[in-house]
Amino acid sequence: MSRTTTRRAAADSATRSGADDHLALRLWLRLLATSRRIEGPLRRWLRAEFASSLARFDLMAQLERHPQGLRMRELSRLLMVTGGNVTGLTDRLVAEGLVERRDDARDRRACTVQLTAEGQQQFRAMAKAHEGWIIGLLAGLTTTQQERLLELLRQLERALPDEP
Amino acid sequence: MSRTTTRRAAADSATRSGADDHLALRLWLRLLATSRRIEGPLRRWLRAEFASSLARFDLMAQLERHPQGLRMRELSRLLMVTGGNVTGLTDRLVAEGLVERRDDARDRRACTVQLTAEGQQQFRAMAKAHEGWIIGLLAGLTTTQQERLLELLRQLERALPDEP
Repeated sequence: MSRTTTRRAAADSATRSGADDHLALRLWLRLLATSRRIEGPLRRWLRAEFASSLARFDLMAQLERHPQGLRMRELSRLLMVTGGNVTGLTDRLVAEGLVERRDDARDRRACTVQLTAEGQQQFRAMAKAHEGWIIGLLAGLTTTQQERLLELLRQLERALPDEP
Repeated sequence: MSRTTTRRAAADSATRSGADDHLALRLWLRLLATSRRIEGPLRRWLRAEFASSLARFDLMAQLERHPQGLRMRELSRLLMVTGGNVTGLTDRLVAEGLVERRDDARDRRACTVQLTAEGQQQFRAMAKAHEGWIIGLLAGLTTTQQERLLELLRQLERALPDEP
């Protein structure tokens, strides 16, 4: 759907509904609040245990998923956590020897960034702890409930407009 | 739970589990991605239709919920959308005549902020459009699915550690 179509569809739905006691709004606020309340501890623990941030972790995670390297523009698009300055973060990781720049095999004028061996090693340690924290934070739901929640979120996402 | 206890509980769970194919991690990444993919259009539409931002909308929403006024510290704590500079945002809203500062009835040294009549009016127009957009964005789920999702998120939230 185009942005305008989506916006109009949204306005039309608003006119049609009304008797649902603001269910969609309450659901969105809950989704946002839950997401923030999981991000909070993750940010604190990454800082306390690895002197790292969620933006830095997210950036390294994307590079780990793309061992062939990513251009800066691709990297920015893939990042899920906003707020970090991608160029600044990358420069710092390069200075620390965790990330390196290489010529892009597809385009000699461009360059890509990728994790160094040390970066991979550091990321894996962080990722292991990170997953443990997530498992603990989500332990209020049984496996079945987690699967149900995942399925509902998938279904919700399929109907969302594409990012521009 | 204290932060340390929660972190330890998380690490213990990580050790105990392992055979769940990273379910919790996949769920968290999906929750984060869904939340971001709803925030994206909301940010664009607020900018396009009201020259506003999600942080500004969030700030005005908190003031609307607290007509008796809020101290700056209370306001910061209540905000769900990070990234906005609360003091800067408030100053701008005051300059535009949408928010006003008053002496705090509870403490003569402090002051509170609240919406002006014009601020209330502007916020209500934005809130109406905002709810319409949310209804449209969440329309991929039936009412029953939305209720189920809301209930699962509530259950998840109850087990999360308190914010520090």
